[in-house]
Amino acid sequence: MINKVLQYIKANSMINEKDKIVLGVSGGADSVCLFFVMLRLREIYHLHLEVVHVNHGIRGDEAKEDEEFVKELCERENVPITIFHEEVKKIASDSKLSEEEAGRQVRYDAFYKVCEEKGCRKIAIAHNRNDSAETILFNLFRGSGIKGLTGIRAVRGEIIRPLLCVSRDEIEEYLEQLGEGFKIDKTNLLEEYTRNKIRRKVLPYVTSEINQKAMEHIVSSGNILSEVVAYIENNMLECYDRIVSYDEIRKEYFIYVNAIMKEDIVIQKELVRYILSKISGGLKDIENKHVEIVLELIDKSVGKKVDLPYDIEVRKDYDKIIFGKHRKVIPRAKDLIIENLGEKDLRIEDTKIHIPGEYYDEDHKWKLEFELINYKKNLIIPTNGCTKWFDYDRIKNTVSLRTRREGDFLQIDQKGSRKKIKSLFIDKKVPRELRDRIPLLADGDHIMWILGDRISEAYKVNEQTEKILIVKVDGGNNNG
Amino acid sequence: MINKVLQYIKANSMINEKDKIVLGVSGGADSVCLFFVMLRLREIYHLHLEVVHVNHGIRGDEAKEDEEFVKELCERENVPITIFHEEVKKIASDSKLSEEEAGRQVRYDAFYKVCEEKGCRKIAIAHNRNDSAETILFNLFRGSGIKGLTGIRAVRGEIIRPLLCVSRDEIEEYLEQLGEGFKIDKTNLLEEYTRNKIRRKVLPYVTSEINQKAMEHIVSSGNILSEVVAYIENNMLECYDRIVSYDEIRKEYFIYVNAIMKEDIVIQKELVRYILSKISGGLKDIENKHVEIVLELIDKSVGKKVDLPYDIEVRKDYDKIIFGKHRKVIPRAKDLIIENLGEKDLRIEDTKIHIPGEYYDEDHKWKLEFELINYKKNLIIPTNGCTKWFDYDRIKNTVSLRTRREGDFLQIDQKGSRKKIKSLFIDKKVPRELRDRIPLLADGDHIMWILGDRISEAYKVNEQTEKILIVKVDGGNNNG
Repeated sequence: MINKVLQYIKANSMINEKDKIVLGVSGGADSVCLFFVMLRLREIYHLHLEVVHVNHGIRGDEAKEDEEFVKELCERENVPITIFHEEVKKIASDSKLSEEEAGRQVRYDAFYKVCEEKGCRKIAIAHNRNDSAETILFNLFRGSGIKGLTGIRAVRGEIIRPLLCVSRDEIEEYLEQLGEGFKIDKTNLLEEYTRNKIRRKVLPYVTSEINQKAMEHIVSSGNILSEVVAYIENNMLECYDRIVSYDEIRKEYFIYVNAIMKEDIVIQKELVRYILSKISGGLKDIENKHVEIVLELIDKSVGKKVDLPYDIEVRKDYDKIIFGKHRKVIPRAKDLIIENLGEKDLRIEDTKIHIPGEYYDEDHKWKLEFELINYKKNLIIPTNGCTKWFDYDRIKNTVSLRTRREGDFLQIDQKGSRKKIKSLFIDKKVPRELRDRIPLLADGDHIMWILGDRISEAYKVNEQTEKILIVKVDGGNNNG
Repeated sequence: MINKVLQYIKANSMINEKDKIVLGVSGGADSVCLFFVMLRLREIYHLHLEVVHVNHGIRGDEAKEDEEFVKELCERENVPITIFHEEVKKIASDSKLSEEEAGRQVRYDAFYKVCEEKGCRKIAIAHNRNDSAETILFNLFRGSGIKGLTGIRAVRGEIIRPLLCVSRDEIEEYLEQLGEGFKIDKTNLLEEYTRNKIRRKVLPYVTSEINQKAMEHIVSSGNILSEVVAYIENNMLECYDRIVSYDEIRKEYFIYVNAIMKEDIVIQKELVRYILSKISGGLKDIENKHVEIVLELIDKSVGKKVDLPYDIEVRKDYDKIIFGKHRKVIPRAKDLIIENLGEKDLRIEDTKIHIPGEYYDEDHKWKLEFELINYKKNLIIPTNGCTKWFDYDRIKNTVSLRTRREGDFLQIDQKGSRKKIKSLFIDKKVPRELRDRIPLLADGDHIMWILGDRISEAYKVNEQTEKILIVKVDGGNNNG
């Protein structure tokens, strides 16, 4: 046992001389075995060990027994222990997580806390080979990319898993040899139902009836796949640097169609997945089918687009695939002609604004962002012309963006004096041909903001304000 | 059903207009479904269909019923049918194959035969999605590279599998809709025991208890892995062309250590596996551990070598890894100095020859091959100086290779006259300094062959010969 683990530790560069290591010990066979293995490694590597035990507050008496058991073990072997008491059931229902998820979170939080407090640099967790095989089957059955088929990793950040190379049977055998007891691991009782079925039904059947070494074989496939996944990722990142561009202003990624078409389908898919994850801020909900839909765009005609979760929009341009957030475009009354200019009317049609949201003009020359925050004291109201704050509760209608209409007005002081937009434009000597082009943010006839110029006094934020509407304009010529 | 299959056929470019296609129809649900699906496709693509039914000769009466069933189906639907009668049990025991293996071979032989005779270009087989999921799990449990986890391929050479996109349940549903019956597929009864366990126990449990779409998910992982495997193979072949060299004379592959070290571990492994497969003529018995042992050589010192199955030897040279067949090197008495030449002695130490076998001189300038064949009439004895035949049964001692010794002789005629090698060398005016360098094949003191010159009359092959020892020398200066 010790030699096998030692070899595994060396192969994965898990432990260095004089390391300070946190051990998660629940009292179950796996973690008790880890405890005794680490005691032996303590001699070899001159380690400092710190045990962490988390009492999940589920099944009171039994949990207390487990706690006492681990505590006595640590006292006997002279290892410092930190015990946490948590109410996992309550945490789960408060945070709307499953008990399994909440338990895991509570445990890892505790491990990291002690790790930091005691100046440790590593956290040893007692996952074994069975756990890894189980994870692989679980992901295979529920459908995941090949990343899900790589199994549990030996090392991830601070986490090390020295027992990942041994089976549950070997662990129990080792404890029997040592004459050491263990408790039934309560955290397993929190496990998802399906995982338990794989652990208690599928794997035992497969091992006894189909192939005795099935778990070893499953995990070994997982190891091969880990290398493959890393290989593909490296090649994808190299490809990303080579063919993906980012447009800072539009906050869009784009790839030339002829460039992505030269890549292998494997790299194409991984690249698309990576870009989508950059936009969404994570990969959850990005599925294979989304990646495939995006790749189908390659053959599609210009202007085709697909909508994905997280408000992601991918569209086909003339020679590019463009990835960005869904753009709400403000339509213009293009077809009208202003007589005396002989030019296209650039009036903006009345566009109802959804908050929060982002709106773009048709040429993507500028963008309006709408956001809502709660009023707090000491907030500093920006004074630049690009960002304006409004008292949200004073707005009577749905905010709209448009160019001027007959009857538009603005409140010009705190007393409530109003002035027609028409008169304001004349006062400010705005050329006649521009008056129909200036975008206005409107609450009915009441103009909240002449973009590039002033806002109505009626919406100014003050100490009575509860919610603030923040409107930000990017691009264009808005330095009023 | 038809639409789903049609889409799958298009996505995999399985069928073209007016194709002539062989259908394997056992009478089981899968192949009867395939039959009816292909009838529909016959209208769409104007196909010519040829059914092949193989009666395996197992369970006589039932097999006959299946045969009649398929025959009637074909007559009813006006599809030509060819029926084969085979005794799979006997074939299996004769050829030392499992009945499953023999049955498969017999069926595919029949398909290919009809395919050729009737001028067809495709063979449609009724594998379904369950079969593919089953194959993936089977390989996962028994341990195979990731190639084994890709599942059954939709198209491989002439073989097409239009039903691979549908489940067994969908197949039975479709037949029920059509009101068509089917027989219990007898070929399944030949299936390996473990495969049957996956089919009848594991997959139904997983589908009903863990994830209803498990089979879809397993197959979809397999599809992703197919692309990944193809990607890795392409990159490996590109790398092979770039960094692997072949030495025609030594029949060895070699790679510079600094070149292979620059490659990703995934490509290193695949490359080694590929080279080993080229030497072995196939991949069976080449396991991951062999590949890993070879890669460990990279860090090893010069001269280290590993022996693998198929007599493969991989060795570390100064800056190269060299892959070839195991070389039996004939040692020389290097350390002696010939006085009057002031030169190293190039005498060859007495080397016992194992037959069959290959032997090399230390500088790999020449190679000796030893092979044994049975005597047959009309064999043509080669007359060139490089290959000599000997009557194996006349050899009294273990054949050895060496330079001359006191007492060596040769038989110079069929009457049995002997002559000392020393006298022969003098007669032939062999320079004194060469006499100790000429390699001799010896049966004790009796010289069988002076390499580059004559063989002893005592070993000449004639009509009484039963076994012939063929000795072939490659390289060197042997045109005597």
